[in-house]
Amino acid sequence: MDPVQIVSDYIRFPSVSTDPAFKEGMIGARDFCANLLKQAGLEVEIVETPLHPIVLGRRTGPKEWPHIVLYGHYDVQPADPLNLWTTPPYEPSVRNGKIFGRGTADNKGPHAVGVIALANVLKRNPNLPLRVTVLIEGEEEIGSPSFGGFLDKYRDELAEADGVILSDTGSPSADQIVITTGLRGIMGCEVRLTGPNGDLHSGIHGGAVYNPIQALCELCASLHNADGSVNVPGFYEGVELPADWEREELKKYPLTEEKYREFLKVDALYSQPNYTPIEAVRYGPTLEFNGIGGGYQGEGSKTVIPAKVFAKITCRLVPGQDEAKVYASLKKTIEERVPKGLKCELVPKQGSNAYAVCPPDRPNTPADQNPVLARAFRAAEVAITEAFGKKPLYVREGGSVPIIGDIKTRTGLDSLMVGLFLPDSKLHAPNENFDLELLHKGIIAYEKIFEGIAGKR
Amino acid sequence: MDPVQIVSDYIRFPSVSTDPAFKEGMIGARDFCANLLKQAGLEVEIVETPLHPIVLGRRTGPKEWPHIVLYGHYDVQPADPLNLWTTPPYEPSVRNGKIFGRGTADNKGPHAVGVIALANVLKRNPNLPLRVTVLIEGEEEIGSPSFGGFLDKYRDELAEADGVILSDTGSPSADQIVITTGLRGIMGCEVRLTGPNGDLHSGIHGGAVYNPIQALCELCASLHNADGSVNVPGFYEGVELPADWEREELKKYPLTEEKYREFLKVDALYSQPNYTPIEAVRYGPTLEFNGIGGGYQGEGSKTVIPAKVFAKITCRLVPGQDEAKVYASLKKTIEERVPKGLKCELVPKQGSNAYAVCPPDRPNTPADQNPVLARAFRAAEVAITEAFGKKPLYVREGGSVPIIGDIKTRTGLDSLMVGLFLPDSKLHAPNENFDLELLHKGIIAYEKIFEGIAGKR
Repeated sequence: MDPVQIVSDYIRFPSVSTDPAFKEGMIGARDFCANLLKQAGLEVEIVETPLHPIVLGRRTGPKEWPHIVLYGHYDVQPADPLNLWTTPPYEPSVRNGKIFGRGTADNKGPHAVGVIALANVLKRNPNLPLRVTVLIEGEEEIGSPSFGGFLDKYRDELAEADGVILSDTGSPSADQIVITTGLRGIMGCEVRLTGPNGDLHSGIHGGAVYNPIQALCELCASLHNADGSVNVPGFYEGVELPADWEREELKKYPLTEEKYREFLKVDALYSQPNYTPIEAVRYGPTLEFNGIGGGYQGEGSKTVIPAKVFAKITCRLVPGQDEAKVYASLKKTIEERVPKGLKCELVPKQGSNAYAVCPPDRPNTPADQNPVLARAFRAAEVAITEAFGKKPLYVREGGSVPIIGDIKTRTGLDSLMVGLFLPDSKLHAPNENFDLELLHKGIIAYEKIFEGIAGKR
Repeated sequence: MDPVQIVSDYIRFPSVSTDPAFKEGMIGARDFCANLLKQAGLEVEIVETPLHPIVLGRRTGPKEWPHIVLYGHYDVQPADPLNLWTTPPYEPSVRNGKIFGRGTADNKGPHAVGVIALANVLKRNPNLPLRVTVLIEGEEEIGSPSFGGFLDKYRDELAEADGVILSDTGSPSADQIVITTGLRGIMGCEVRLTGPNGDLHSGIHGGAVYNPIQALCELCASLHNADGSVNVPGFYEGVELPADWEREELKKYPLTEEKYREFLKVDALYSQPNYTPIEAVRYGPTLEFNGIGGGYQGEGSKTVIPAKVFAKITCRLVPGQDEAKVYASLKKTIEERVPKGLKCELVPKQGSNAYAVCPPDRPNTPADQNPVLARAFRAAEVAITEAFGKKPLYVREGGSVPIIGDIKTRTGLDSLMVGLFLPDSKLHAPNENFDLELLHKGIIAYEKIFEGIAGKR
């Protein structure tokens, strides 16, 4: 099995889950994936869902064997804008040590790494005492709408496993692999303010009504304190600060504030108390405005007092926060602060709690951490150090991958996340690519991880 | 001359100044207007401008005769949306004591009132000792871009006049005519804030940069105090409060706060100190937000920290304020308050100072008020009282008609503004109409005003 050939063949199937026009590509990628699992020696089941089926592969065995779940997704983002691709998105092209194509990094390449490694290990040692369940879904890029139902349906089988391993997070470079120890949660909503019944002439009526834009600006401005912290009573309830070892670990991350500032192209960084800016994006909660709109937005000017205005808000949440409680706190706060004369509506959009896992042998490692998970983490550290020449870093990521928390909530399983894409892998963008060094070394590392979990190292 | 017939014929010409497709309608209305002036006995000159010509009519005479300027505009707003008109916009229709059609109220009907009255008066008394200059422009609905140049070119002739009379303002009802004694000025601009170089993922980078929407909201929120006053140092510099008689006069205006609140369909009115809400819209300065936009405004959510955001602001100004100084104060204030890490640009949009004229015999009438203007106001009061059965009210209007201030600045002439449209005249909207009672009684009143100015009453 040539890994580059496998990834190349895999990405030729345009498996865009959001667009019904790509139905054939979805079927092609799913069948390719199923075949890959069969070649690795797994029993394969295609689990139908309301939309795109899940490919389920199993290597069963005695109950006393460790049982690991490997997760990935065979669907990809749309490739637009097509004209910005150097080579066509569904025609693999290898240049400068990278393979280019839609889905190379997100997520066909990284989960192929796991499957190929598994195939290699099982070929070398057909009797490896390791049970494996492989779940490759087809709806990740559209929010995994069928995945919760699947988890519930297969709960007994999955809950009996020891943990999940996946690669759908990033590392700063091929020299420095990251094991992602957590992801922020998210709570999204939209605030809508309505003042007068219709837009008013600002000459004839300006001065007698509360301008809804002014009211919204005052409302939004009230949601942060001068020090950058969030001014919503209850928002910080339960917030867990990062452990000391996590702060120390992050200091080894190859990014200075100066470099970060230059990367973001801002004159100054800005963060709330208790976190440096680099800590804040991974360990701190936020309340961000993602969009605002109201009144006249065209060229020139129109002298109107708009009737309606809205703002889109998302909060990133950290362990200890509950998205439903944060929503309730924000709703209460906003309703209390809406000025007289305006009507306010808060529309919830999305919600998922943060996820965090503590590696073994840390001051805050839970006493009841399961021994197979601990072995998986220890095996991963050794495997990555040997394959990539440097110990992995253990840091949380600022983004939200709701399925990881969902797996934990519904099955009790924790996840070992090995970062296999890079800052310039261009996920969701033109010229998406997967670094071949990560592909090849990743397979070596994954092989050692599987062997380590099985107790063969 | 049958007034209804004249207005009917006049509005058959679709003189939409903003749309080149209506060139023929513009020429038709201009020629109709010129002909009307000729029939009234005036010498007519068509003054070419870069866009739409001005119709200039003159009745000359000895220098010792009073000299009044009659202003109007023959251009109209577009008629869209056409499907909301009960009868077609350019086909006159008389129903329920009103004539319907685009331009009936704004401004063909009202300035026809003046021209017809003048024709009647001159027919009755061909030797009336009154000089008249009639200016009917064709660019009012697009901001009168050629009018300033025209005023400069004809300054010597115009400056020698005693005052302007026009009807391009409103009255609350046919029972209660308003003489508009002032108009607010306007200063418009757009604030643009830029944070990071491009939109950022709010999961990956949220917590380390100042969100431009947050910054703009904080900035905009800082522009008002809690009591509703404008929090821009220098904003209130020179602001003249309404005279006591103006407050008393406004109390006679047939509108209570309760009715106004119901009309605006808001739960509560809102105004700054020193003014009741009804006073505030006419005598108070404002800072209003007309539009705001940034980030993701589509359906659902997109977890982005936007790079750019903007707000459109207009300030309505009162006598004593200088639009250039207000702009400078706002610019200074905004620049001082922009948080570190963001770039700010303030783009000026429009500016004109407020205009106010004091009728004679008031405590604050200027000692040097010109006697012909005073006679015009006194004649108007008698004429309106006789024609409409009730004394006119003298109140300022909240809107801005920059040409009135422009005439004052460039020629020194004050204006006598007789309100001849009603709250339901639907200016700029479908089913625009002109009340026939105002048409007929307006002509009688205008006749008496001309005779009064000439000293014949």
